[in-house]
Amino acid sequence: MRIALDAMGGDFAPDVTIAGALEAVSEYDDIHVILTGDRQKITASLQNWRYPTEKISIYHASEVVEMHESPSFALRRKKDSSIRKAVDLVKNHDADAAVSAGHSGVAMATALFVLGKLPNVDRPAIATIMPSLAGHFLLIDAGANVDCKPENLLEFAYMGNAYYRAIFNIESPRIALLSIGEEDTKGNELTKETFKLLKNSNLNFIGNIEGKDIFSGNADVIVCDGFIGNIVLKVSEGLAETIMKMLKHEIANVTTGKLGYMMIKPAIKNFKKRTDYSEYGGAPLLGINGTCIISHGRSSARAIKNAIRVASDMASKKVHEIIANELKGQNHFNSAVKIEFNSNKEFEGQSPSKDVSYVKG
Amino acid sequence: MRIALDAMGGDFAPDVTIAGALEAVSEYDDIHVILTGDRQKITASLQNWRYPTEKISIYHASEVVEMHESPSFALRRKKDSSIRKAVDLVKNHDADAAVSAGHSGVAMATALFVLGKLPNVDRPAIATIMPSLAGHFLLIDAGANVDCKPENLLEFAYMGNAYYRAIFNIESPRIALLSIGEEDTKGNELTKETFKLLKNSNLNFIGNIEGKDIFSGNADVIVCDGFIGNIVLKVSEGLAETIMKMLKHEIANVTTGKLGYMMIKPAIKNFKKRTDYSEYGGAPLLGINGTCIISHGRSSARAIKNAIRVASDMASKKVHEIIANELKGQNHFNSAVKIEFNSNKEFEGQSPSKDVSYVKG
Repeated sequence: MRIALDAMGGDFAPDVTIAGALEAVSEYDDIHVILTGDRQKITASLQNWRYPTEKISIYHASEVVEMHESPSFALRRKKDSSIRKAVDLVKNHDADAAVSAGHSGVAMATALFVLGKLPNVDRPAIATIMPSLAGHFLLIDAGANVDCKPENLLEFAYMGNAYYRAIFNIESPRIALLSIGEEDTKGNELTKETFKLLKNSNLNFIGNIEGKDIFSGNADVIVCDGFIGNIVLKVSEGLAETIMKMLKHEIANVTTGKLGYMMIKPAIKNFKKRTDYSEYGGAPLLGINGTCIISHGRSSARAIKNAIRVASDMASKKVHEIIANELKGQNHFNSAVKIEFNSNKEFEGQSPSKDVSYVKG
Repeated sequence: MRIALDAMGGDFAPDVTIAGALEAVSEYDDIHVILTGDRQKITASLQNWRYPTEKISIYHASEVVEMHESPSFALRRKKDSSIRKAVDLVKNHDADAAVSAGHSGVAMATALFVLGKLPNVDRPAIATIMPSLAGHFLLIDAGANVDCKPENLLEFAYMGNAYYRAIFNIESPRIALLSIGEEDTKGNELTKETFKLLKNSNLNFIGNIEGKDIFSGNADVIVCDGFIGNIVLKVSEGLAETIMKMLKHEIANVTTGKLGYMMIKPAIKNFKKRTDYSEYGGAPLLGINGTCIISHGRSSARAIKNAIRVASDMASKKVHEIIANELKGQNHFNSAVKIEFNSNKEFEGQSPSKDVSYVKG
C-alpha cells in the first residue's frame, strides 16, 4: 500500500512525523510512504535516520497550512500545500490513502473537496476508536458535523457499521445512540427522531446508551452528532489525564506511596498503553470516496506509525467501497429535504468557497 | 433551618435516606429535618437509631412516585406523594428547603410547578459541582433542559454566577462556555450565538472552554445545555469508574501489584473522597422561587447528609433571592420571542399537563 503522509502536519513536524513514517516502513513489509512537503526540509530530516530508502519517497509541496488558517482559505489559496498534495495523490491514484496530523479542519475539508462524497452520503463523519472495559468502541461522529439532522445520524450509524464490520470482522456490530436515558422517550429532539429511524433500520440497533455506560463494552458503535462527539472525546481525554495527575498527587502524599508506586508502575504503564490514543493512530473520515486518516496534532512517531497502519488496512480492505455498498439504494434525504437543506446555512460547510464548520482537533 | 426531606426518595429509601437525615441533625446544630412520607414506615425505620428526637419530625404523605411514572402523571395524580409534600412545605413556609433523591424529573417538575419560577427566569437549570485539579467547578445545566436557545444559556450563566458567588464567596466567578474550540467561531449554532450574548454581558466571561480543559480549574462556572451537561456528567462518572476498574485489573496482573496496591491504598481512598459525588450531596434547581436540591438516586447516607447541608446553606443565604436580584431588570426573552416559544413544542415541559422533558438522573 502506498500511503501519502503530510510530512509538515503535526505539532512536532516534520521530524516526529517523518520518524513515524520510518517506523511504519521498517515494521510493515507492504507499506510505502510518500512524504509530501518541503523537499529540502524533508531531506534534511531524513538524513538523521537509517531506513529502507526504497520504501520512502518525497513529493514536493511548496506550502504549509498554518493552524490559524481557515479551511476555505486553505482550499482557495494554498493549492500547493502538503495536506492538499497528499490528498491529490490519492485522487490521482498515485497513493492508496492519505494521512495528516496537521490542521484537522483543513484536512477534512480537503479530503471532502478533492475526493468527493460517496453516493447517498450527505455528511462524511469522523470515526474514532475509544477504549472500553471490554476492548474498544467506535464513536461516530467525533467532530466533523456540529449541527445535524436525524438522517445524518442514521447515515453515521450505517457508515460506522460498515467500518466496524470491515476492520474488526464482526458481522453485526451493536449500534447504540448516545442519549440521556435508555428509554426511547429520553433525549433531545434530535436523538428522539433519530431513535425512530434507527429502530426502523436493518441495523443491529440496541437502543439509547447513557454517558455512564459508553465505556462498559455493551456497544460497538456509538452514534452522536459531531459537537457532542468531540466534547465526549475531549472530556474523556482531559478526565483521564486529570485522574492520573490527582492519583499521583495523592500517592505522593502518603508515606508508603513512593514505594507502592514503584511496585504498580508496570501496571500503570500497561494501563496507559491500553488507553493511549496513539495506539489507535488516528481517525478516518468516513463517507468520502477514498481513504483519509486524521491524526491528533500532538501525534508522536508511534501515533503516526499506527495511523499509517490503519490507513493501509482501510485501503487494502477498500472500506470506502464497503461503505458505498452499505448505502446502496439508500437515500435518507429525499430531494425536497435536500432543497430545504441547501437553502439554509448548514451546508455552507460543504462548499470550498465558505468556511467549513469542521473542527480543528 | 428546617429541611423537608423526601424520606421515600432514593434507591435505598427509606432506611438510607433517613440515616442521612439523622447524620445531618447529629452533625449540624441548626438543622431540623422534616421527613415526608409513610409515617408508619418512617417510624419503624427511626426505631433503629438513637438521635436528637427534637430535631426530627414526620409529615405524612400517603403516596410514593414510582421511577417509571412521568412527571405529568405524578403532578396530576399523586398530589399526596412524599416529593410533593416536601415541596409543599417549602411553598407554605413550613420548611426552608426541600431535598429529594427520588425521581429527579418529578422532583424538578414538582419544584417548578409548586414554587414557580423567579421573575425573568425562562428555564430553571440544574447546577452540579464537579471536581477539578484546582478544587471544583460548577456545571450548569446538568440535565434540566434538553433543547435550549442562546438566551437560556445566558440565563444559566447568570444563575450559575449568582450561586457560585453566594456559596463560595468569589466576587467574580470565571464563566466559560463549553464548546469544541477556544475561538468564538468554533461551536454549533447554539454556542456561537451564546458566545456573543455572553461577551456582551457584564459577566466575567473567559470564552469557550474545550472538553479536555474542564477539569483544569481554569473556569468556575461552565455553561452548556442540559443534554450535553448530562452527558458530560455521566461520561465523567462512567470514565472515572472505568479507569479505576482498569487500573485495578492491571495492578492485579503484575507480580508486585498486590503489595504496591496496599501501599497506595490510603492515597486511593483520598482520591475517591475528593472525587466522590456524595461529598457534594446533590444539585440545586436554580431559577425557582425557593430552594430544592435534587440528589442522586444512588445516594448514600453521607450524600443525603451533605445534600441537607447544601440545602441549609442555600436557604440561609437566600440564594434564590440573590439570583432574582442578579436577573432584576433583565429579560432575555422579549414578548415576541415568548409567544413564538409558547407556540412550539419546547415549552410543553413547563406545563403540568404535559410530560416535562426533564431528565431522570
